[in-house]
Amino acid sequence: MQNNAPLKIGVAGLGTVGSEVVRRFTEENQHLQQRAGRVLQVTAVSAKHKNKKRICDVSSIAWLDDPAAMAAHKDVDVVVELIGGAEGPARALAEATLKQGKPFITANKALLATHGKALVELSEKASAPLYCEAAVAGGIPVIKTLREALAGNSIHEVFGILNGTCNFILTKMRDTGSAFADVLAEAQQLGYAEADPAFDIDGMDAGHKLAILSALAFGCPVDLSALKVEGIRNITVMDIAFADELKYRIKLLGVAKLTENGLLQRVSPYMVPLTSILARVDGVTNAVFIEANPVGPLILIGRGAGAGPTVSAVLSDVLDCATSRRASAFAVPSQHLKEIKMLPEIDSKGAFYIRAMVADQPGVLADIAAIMRDSSISIQSVLQKGPGVSKAVPIVLITHETNEQDIAKAMAAMRKLPTVLEAPCVIRILPH
Amino acid sequence: MQNNAPLKIGVAGLGTVGSEVVRRFTEENQHLQQRAGRVLQVTAVSAKHKNKKRICDVSSIAWLDDPAAMAAHKDVDVVVELIGGAEGPARALAEATLKQGKPFITANKALLATHGKALVELSEKASAPLYCEAAVAGGIPVIKTLREALAGNSIHEVFGILNGTCNFILTKMRDTGSAFADVLAEAQQLGYAEADPAFDIDGMDAGHKLAILSALAFGCPVDLSALKVEGIRNITVMDIAFADELKYRIKLLGVAKLTENGLLQRVSPYMVPLTSILARVDGVTNAVFIEANPVGPLILIGRGAGAGPTVSAVLSDVLDCATSRRASAFAVPSQHLKEIKMLPEIDSKGAFYIRAMVADQPGVLADIAAIMRDSSISIQSVLQKGPGVSKAVPIVLITHETNEQDIAKAMAAMRKLPTVLEAPCVIRILPH
Repeated sequence: MQNNAPLKIGVAGLGTVGSEVVRRFTEENQHLQQRAGRVLQVTAVSAKHKNKKRICDVSSIAWLDDPAAMAAHKDVDVVVELIGGAEGPARALAEATLKQGKPFITANKALLATHGKALVELSEKASAPLYCEAAVAGGIPVIKTLREALAGNSIHEVFGILNGTCNFILTKMRDTGSAFADVLAEAQQLGYAEADPAFDIDGMDAGHKLAILSALAFGCPVDLSALKVEGIRNITVMDIAFADELKYRIKLLGVAKLTENGLLQRVSPYMVPLTSILARVDGVTNAVFIEANPVGPLILIGRGAGAGPTVSAVLSDVLDCATSRRASAFAVPSQHLKEIKMLPEIDSKGAFYIRAMVADQPGVLADIAAIMRDSSISIQSVLQKGPGVSKAVPIVLITHETNEQDIAKAMAAMRKLPTVLEAPCVIRILPH
Repeated sequence: MQNNAPLKIGVAGLGTVGSEVVRRFTEENQHLQQRAGRVLQVTAVSAKHKNKKRICDVSSIAWLDDPAAMAAHKDVDVVVELIGGAEGPARALAEATLKQGKPFITANKALLATHGKALVELSEKASAPLYCEAAVAGGIPVIKTLREALAGNSIHEVFGILNGTCNFILTKMRDTGSAFADVLAEAQQLGYAEADPAFDIDGMDAGHKLAILSALAFGCPVDLSALKVEGIRNITVMDIAFADELKYRIKLLGVAKLTENGLLQRVSPYMVPLTSILARVDGVTNAVFIEANPVGPLILIGRGAGAGPTVSAVLSDVLDCATSRRASAFAVPSQHLKEIKMLPEIDSKGAFYIRAMVADQPGVLADIAAIMRDSSISIQSVLQKGPGVSKAVPIVLITHETNEQDIAKAMAAMRKLPTVLEAPCVIRILPH
């Protein structure tokens, strides 16, 4: 069963991760080869710039200007794609490799979230395995856990902190009391946020990861279009302080939940109760919570991004490939993937935090309470700060369980009140 | 590569876990077969009592009075051993199955911790894989994580909460203020502790698990004899209250740490800082912390015992077996396992919590402080309660980093002081 011939590896993309992967196979190979039970060698590489200074020595490795040429290269048994992007060279390389019947290893969440279904079909048609541990949550082995360790379970819910940049920003805002924009600038200086941070802070990065996890957990095709996504741009230091007072932490969560009526998938900020372990996951760390039968609740916590964790995940895939450990890319063969009805957001239920800036005058609470009553929303508690020096004062409501539709109706009505000075901030509360 | 013939499974031991495993293969098989890509059927079972009432129907399955007969049975491709115990029928079945060249799946930590090395050698000689996900930390996929997901890493340290009974008792003592003996009795009533609780509460259950994790993490043969084990019998409500005051939680941890001088393996109570996620892991839940390069820190949390989590792990092994996913039982082939020098406990370093019951009279602190000075132990803080109604009052010292040898010397000296009324309680402090 075990193949003992040398495994010839092509690496496309020589950024921080790609260079470190090549370095480990060229410099620290013994440990990896013992695990693999065979020789592992990088035989071809490809990147944009040939003569860039790198931590790995590629002088004795075949250089391909066109990464797609790696697929058909006679000295390449498996391709590791670290180029990134849902289209262009990454997609071309994926398709060409799988069509050749060669295993394909990728860290590319955008590619999988966008073209996952088609790539899995290609992979199955050609009996070429597709490995993607590095695509979601970095060094946390959540792909392997969902597709192998929990293979005998029915999964009800997967949620977690899937974007380290957002978690760093929210943690730092709480620790320092600095505003979102200032902390974002700091995160950019530290290299924790991109020059164009929109993909991270508006939630789409977490969305791609959630779509992949959702497919793996529930056995349905990846479907980005079903996703509701909201980022953290509108979270203020004031909301973070109120969260503290109410024994919550604000976290950007990706949540996928199977209900009687369908599947809900959403990325948005949540008030996470301090009694939840996720509330204690700070900084760039990621965490994934899985609720399944018969295993019960399972939580995985680790570094979600950066060279080290990503390299760890890529090496795990290479060693799985070298030892012929395979699983269906999305846990079940694609013929058994089933379309699950996506739950319209408006039907979903939960408790809410609502913070409005209101005119500091009598009667405001009575008006807001009447709106809540008329929207069938039951209030659990109210925080109202005494008269302040400014004209606008915050009022915070925590609701009992209600639904999105009623909340939307109430918010529309509140905005019409002359005493409500700006759009209220609405944050979902994670159940205990 | 993929075998499509039906997989014929023998299950030895039909307790809660075994019966549920058989039930799932006979009643809820479709999901499992889709994952496996082949028919899965239980073809033989064995247990002590044939006519006991069980949740599974075994009337159409071959019944073997002697479990060891399963190994050579023509209708058994793989054996699932859920009998338990390091010797007797479990060991005989393991040896017979592997000698037949058939895959062997077990939840038996005592068997692996005691005979792991010999069984792995048998497994390799016969090319028969050995699966043991259920042996450590129940539903937490820590075996798969160490032997596959982290295969490209060097692991520095593994530690965690490995015994749910002890964690339940410590959590309950804190929540209710009840004494150890009372909470133990309650745990026994609830089925969380055995009638003879010694194996759990004296730390040996956690010790078996730690020895297996240690072998997997550091690539050395399992060696129970190298283990220092201390349980939770001597933890008092008073110590738990002091821990609270000092911002710690007391947890029974298994700790395996690779240092320059060798490998330290220890099970003992620890003061875990509230800043650590492990401090928040309560009740019967288990948690494993792994520190490795390049992945960084990784934490896995879930149910460590009980039917559901154990069944989840067994099903994962059966599906790995059905799809020919294999790994060396202890992560690297046994020829590459290396003996690592076990660190004498006396050499290990750390900070300590020391609580002594002393006579309520002047000068006691001065005597104790002199002993600490003479033992080269530097004190970080002292908690001394004012004069009470009883003659014995507690005094608590928190030390800076020191070593076990100096602590042992100081404790011996303290016991000679007439004002120190009983042996002090000494608890290690987990570094931040």
